Amino acid sequence: MKNQVVRSISIAALSLAAPCLFAAPAQEPIQPIPAAKVTSPALVELGRKLYFDPRLSKSGFISCNSCHNLSMGGSDNLKTSIGHNWQEGPINSPTVLNSSMNLAQFWDGRAKDLKEQAGGPIANPGEMAFTHELAVDLLQSIPGYVSEFKKVFKTEKIDIGEVTAAIAAFEETLVTPNSRFDKWLKGDKKALTAVEVEGYNLFKESGCVACHNGPAAGGNSFQKMGLVEPYNASVPAEGRSAVTGKDADRFNFKVPTLRNVELTYPYFHDGAADTLKEAVNTMGRIQLGRKYSDSENAKIVAFLKTLTGDQPNFKLPFLPPSSDVTKRPQPFAK
Amino acid sequence: MKNQVVRSISIAALSLAAPCLFAAPAQEPIQPIPAAKVTSPALVELGRKLYFDPRLSKSGFISCNSCHNLSMGGSDNLKTSIGHNWQEGPINSPTVLNSSMNLAQFWDGRAKDLKEQAGGPIANPGEMAFTHELAVDLLQSIPGYVSEFKKVFKTEKIDIGEVTAAIAAFEETLVTPNSRFDKWLKGDKKALTAVEVEGYNLFKESGCVACHNGPAAGGNSFQKMGLVEPYNASVPAEGRSAVTGKDADRFNFKVPTLRNVELTYPYFHDGAADTLKEAVNTMGRIQLGRKYSDSENAKIVAFLKTLTGDQPNFKLPFLPPSSDVTKRPQPFAK
Repeated sequence: MKNQVVRSISIAALSLAAPCLFAAPAQEPIQPIPAAKVTSPALVELGRKLYFDPRLSKSGFISCNSCHNLSMGGSDNLKTSIGHNWQEGPINSPTVLNSSMNLAQFWDGRAKDLKEQAGGPIANPGEMAFTHELAVDLLQSIPGYVSEFKKVFKTEKIDIGEVTAAIAAFEETLVTPNSRFDKWLKGDKKALTAVEVEGYNLFKESGCVACHNGPAAGGNSFQKMGLVEPYNASVPAEGRSAVTGKDADRFNFKVPTLRNVELTYPYFHDGAADTLKEAVNTMGRIQLGRKYSDSENAKIVAFLKTLTGDQPNFKLPFLPPSSDVTKRPQPFAK
Repeated sequence: MKNQVVRSISIAALSLAAPCLFAAPAQEPIQPIPAAKVTSPALVELGRKLYFDPRLSKSGFISCNSCHNLSMGGSDNLKTSIGHNWQEGPINSPTVLNSSMNLAQFWDGRAKDLKEQAGGPIANPGEMAFTHELAVDLLQSIPGYVSEFKKVFKTEKIDIGEVTAAIAAFEETLVTPNSRFDKWLKGDKKALTAVEVEGYNLFKESGCVACHNGPAAGGNSFQKMGLVEPYNASVPAEGRSAVTGKDADRFNFKVPTLRNVELTYPYFHDGAADTLKEAVNTMGRIQLGRKYSDSENAKIVAFLKTLTGDQPNFKLPFLPPSSDVTKRPQPFAK
């Protein structure tokens, strides 16, 4: 009996130790994504409604979820987005999933955090084409919102800072833990196939991890698009230099996260790469000076598809109705 | 002991009988909405995904939910809808909620049921601007959809009839039972205030129930818009005559449901009435030849707001990603 107990303990110790020997997360350039911690459920719930509310646009038709669609990897899967009056957007919509891990927001990092970002599209004439004043007036005219803002912010007077704080709080919950890759990182050897592990090793060895690292596998630095070979972009965006004014920052863009990359096609800031195969080949060529064989490319793509984690999991929000005094949307006003 | 049992039975019998004496649903022109019965959950789940999938449009941007938004009473709350390339729609989007109870679909009843309706907007150049062939090809290229269609329809070949059957099956679940009015109809006297009951009585006495009757409080007949006084519509739609070719049917439209009418503003086929107050006044004038006092109007509006039932209650669907061979959307193609 005593022997049996001892043997059981040994096996338990071994099975705990084995994964650490195999793949200790701390030793890997990519770390598992932690689950979101919600400290204020009411704030998050309010933000969720605002995120889905098209009344924050001039047309009453475009919400945050239009271009960062939570049914589709937090993106719109378009090369560049559709804005008010069907305007063609200047750049690809980055995914909102795991965006709280970004060092800054937008491709050029012009917003320091999600709160600052959230105010951008609302007032951008090419996107939601509203103004912060009109958005606040609108919410203030909707009794259901007024009572929710009061509950959360302890005031009956809504301001844009509260609006963007709520949206940001909701977005902070949009992390995607429990991908197969994360399970593997945490020691579950069976979570990945041999080919996927080979793809990961190739991803590391060939230098992709120089930029795509950290829990989000990206999002934590600005890098030049076209390091080894110039990139012939299909949009005129100049990247980080638009913010810093420095010529050295031209064509520097925030490295996108590779989390859920299977869902966030098309790729790059101009959305020019429709498939992961194309994106991997282009990255190898222009960033690493390397031509991947078809077999190598397939291995890396197989690895990338293991980065899909738990997708947003909540009930479709119900939006409080407008009141008789709420200004109606103007989708076709000139 | 025997007496106690007898007394208990008597009380039970009374409490069962009382609501019937008070308001037997069978005696009222509006009946409670029954909850949806789901016979094929997999079919409904597939339909839900399709309903939310903007890839059924040419742009990849417009889904069924864009104009029949389930966060907003199953409508878009716009006078007329926004279609592909920001085209101005010719008519107000009716709510999808409880639409399974309609005698036919669209304002002019040109589709006999939800299945037939579902194919319309996909192929309408002014709405989703796609074709049934392209929609089927698209779905057939998405492995996640192929396996779901196979599970539901026992075939690997998707066709448009399956697509519309699935969307219709999902839409059939979009009923809204348990409104306060339905609770009152079922005998819960406290579910309505005295003013709301007065509003209902006025609604009945002044003739509104001639058209707005049945479980959906409408949806079960075509009626002339402008019976007593001509209606000066802001859209050119001619209504039922476009289907029947009969001059007598000009300006006959399907009577809209009043269920959830608090959420489905603006009102009428041209979306010209922004508020319930305005809608009630106009209806009184042009359909009944009656001018409601402010107090009467307020009572009817109070009653109408009791028709809001349980709103759609499900998790935001996750859409299976496109594959490398899926054709990409063309939002800006000329």
